Amino acid sequence: MNLETIGQQARQASYALAMLSSQKKNEVLQTVAQCLRANQDPILKANDQDMEKGKQKGLNEGLLDRLKLDPARLEAMADSLLDIVKLEDPIGEILEERILTNGLKIQKKRVPIGVIGMIYEARPNVTLDAFSICFKSGNAVILKGGSDALLSNIAITQCIQTGLEQCGVDPFSIQLIESTSHEDTQRFMSMTKWIDVIIPRGSARLIQSVMNNAKVPVIETGAGNCHIYIDNTADLKKAVEIVYNAKTQRIGVCNAAESLLVQKEIAPKILPLIQKRLNEKEVCLKVDDEAYAILKEQPGRIEHATAEDWKTEYLDYILSVKIVSDVQEAIDHINQYSTHHSECIVSEDPQAAQQFLDQIDSACVYWNASTRFTDGGVFGLGAEIGISTGKIHARGPMGLKEMTSYKYTIQGNGQVR
Amino acid sequence: MNLETIGQQARQASYALAMLSSQKKNEVLQTVAQCLRANQDPILKANDQDMEKGKQKGLNEGLLDRLKLDPARLEAMADSLLDIVKLEDPIGEILEERILTNGLKIQKKRVPIGVIGMIYEARPNVTLDAFSICFKSGNAVILKGGSDALLSNIAITQCIQTGLEQCGVDPFSIQLIESTSHEDTQRFMSMTKWIDVIIPRGSARLIQSVMNNAKVPVIETGAGNCHIYIDNTADLKKAVEIVYNAKTQRIGVCNAAESLLVQKEIAPKILPLIQKRLNEKEVCLKVDDEAYAILKEQPGRIEHATAEDWKTEYLDYILSVKIVSDVQEAIDHINQYSTHHSECIVSEDPQAAQQFLDQIDSACVYWNASTRFTDGGVFGLGAEIGISTGKIHARGPMGLKEMTSYKYTIQGNGQVR
Repeated sequence: MNLETIGQQARQASYALAMLSSQKKNEVLQTVAQCLRANQDPILKANDQDMEKGKQKGLNEGLLDRLKLDPARLEAMADSLLDIVKLEDPIGEILEERILTNGLKIQKKRVPIGVIGMIYEARPNVTLDAFSICFKSGNAVILKGGSDALLSNIAITQCIQTGLEQCGVDPFSIQLIESTSHEDTQRFMSMTKWIDVIIPRGSARLIQSVMNNAKVPVIETGAGNCHIYIDNTADLKKAVEIVYNAKTQRIGVCNAAESLLVQKEIAPKILPLIQKRLNEKEVCLKVDDEAYAILKEQPGRIEHATAEDWKTEYLDYILSVKIVSDVQEAIDHINQYSTHHSECIVSEDPQAAQQFLDQIDSACVYWNASTRFTDGGVFGLGAEIGISTGKIHARGPMGLKEMTSYKYTIQGNGQVR
Repeated sequence: MNLETIGQQARQASYALAMLSSQKKNEVLQTVAQCLRANQDPILKANDQDMEKGKQKGLNEGLLDRLKLDPARLEAMADSLLDIVKLEDPIGEILEERILTNGLKIQKKRVPIGVIGMIYEARPNVTLDAFSICFKSGNAVILKGGSDALLSNIAITQCIQTGLEQCGVDPFSIQLIESTSHEDTQRFMSMTKWIDVIIPRGSARLIQSVMNNAKVPVIETGAGNCHIYIDNTADLKKAVEIVYNAKTQRIGVCNAAESLLVQKEIAPKILPLIQKRLNEKEVCLKVDDEAYAILKEQPGRIEHATAEDWKTEYLDYILSVKIVSDVQEAIDHINQYSTHHSECIVSEDPQAAQQFLDQIDSACVYWNASTRFTDGGVFGLGAEIGISTGKIHARGPMGLKEMTSYKYTIQGNGQVR
């Protein structure tokens, strides 16, 4: 299938989608859920083939687990569509309205963005997530998933298209790019006429590559070098538990903590307690010289940090540790090295906390709570297509509203200027 | 000056700017207005040198007029700063607030974007406009103006920096790139670490070049291939006056009409009336065959349109004219050829009008009013840094609010997940 044709079809579908009623959109989502259940066998069979190829190719356990579908996972995917049905349709909301002295009535109205391009890794569930969020917000979507999940993605996309057709809705509301060539990916990211925005989802490397090569506007997502700063006034117990939770509750996610900053006066007291708690998960600490001096006699894995550690998102049982003199040094360090995702201050001093909340240049800034809460569901958005670490268009978790734009309509009776 | 240094200085300044009170920002704007008045002589002298070079280089009248500063224009520029003082400061607004069942208090708060890059042509007044809007919204700005205005821009920037220093505010809140090399412009557009968004302002060609070459996110602005569609139910007088106004009131602006679509039944009646009115300004009509047949016996300039005409922004006394069978054909044509800026339907049929307002994929869609109203001032934004024709981040006129982002702050008392 020619990429230009895919783009043109998506644009055409987007015009019809923008006009669909909430009721019709919900009908489609329910029908697609039924189709997923009815087509469990062909989808699982396609996934088996992907898994087989993946094993032959030597994909690691983590990747294979993300690729794997089974009846329970498919059932959860179908259920997730029904969750989207329950969410309020953002389209058509009047954001502002004014009548000018010359009688012109200006309305600012929420509309879909149009055509969304998604580039992601070999995770077939993202195929359905991307569709459901884009569709409910009135957008057509073009998907470019990881090649290791190609057969699974084809089967899921066909199933969705069947559901769309059953409801009399343009099946090109979702399209999958089956080509795995680098050139086609590059061309896809350059189709400014047909695609309004590209959202990459996956590793820092994938996101960076899209940011560097796309001509279509990109919303940067995901990579999280998240920091926790422990102020000299911190409650020791809160500090230990927040660090333990943010680092170890789930290591492979973007809102996990990767770096710990500790105010120098409290460091000798708190660092051994933190290390002790993290030893339960055998976390390796990459520490600066001062922290090394404090921890070297204690049991636990410690290594000297290098400059590279301050900017590393480990996604592993590893945490970098640095001693700082005050909240300002912590803020400066974080603003320099973070990926602007989620950061936390643990402190009982409201003034230091406010300074941190105000001056940290990240999407989500916490005071005395784990960074693990950064999530569209937790924040009440109902669903999440990604977490923006950029400042343009959307920041933090992106739900249905973040997949919209607006337009002005102006009604007159012959006014000229 | 090294570009990396400029970027780093801008980022540093942006952190302080984000914390400035509205009162302090207004004090700076007032001080800069005074500095402009006090430094009239050196600014006009620098502008004289630019004008002299421009004449030697053979710049046309229009370009020289845009480059030219005089005491009255400088006075108007100083006054414009005081207009910005009057506008409400958007920073710090709480956009949303919720308390979760676990006690976490989540606030979504409006913050500056950070560092704005502006790329524009040889119009020294834009230097001041860009500063005042970026500054009041708490952003640092890096400017890359047209090389023909370099000396004027240096003088104005120095004057602004003097005002900033007098108020004890980081003078790097505004910086001008003095290099005119293509490589430096390319490097400027690639500094994703230091610049959050680039806003190009100028010709379609300049904007396209920035869109194609920037790695920093770009907000597409300005180019306006604006359409007027006359429906079969149109009021003849309204139609004639709207077309006349939208085409001729000011030809060089992005909200001027460039293309006229006429429903075929009303065409024999309305086209001669429109032509007669446009003859007052000697407008040349580039018409399709059907329109040619209607107009060929009438006095006035007509030429056969080519496919190229449908996508041309003339910015001249030229209007393309096409006969269509109904509102749907008009919508399809416009969505295919427009630059998504401003379009108008002239109609007395509310159903056709609603269809047009709903389905036209442009920033501003008019019913019975001239497209010339698309403007930040008219829309009540108070000021305008450009008109976005993209759908990401901002659409239509961009004022202070459109120069902001938001962040989430989350307050807890030790919550973990």
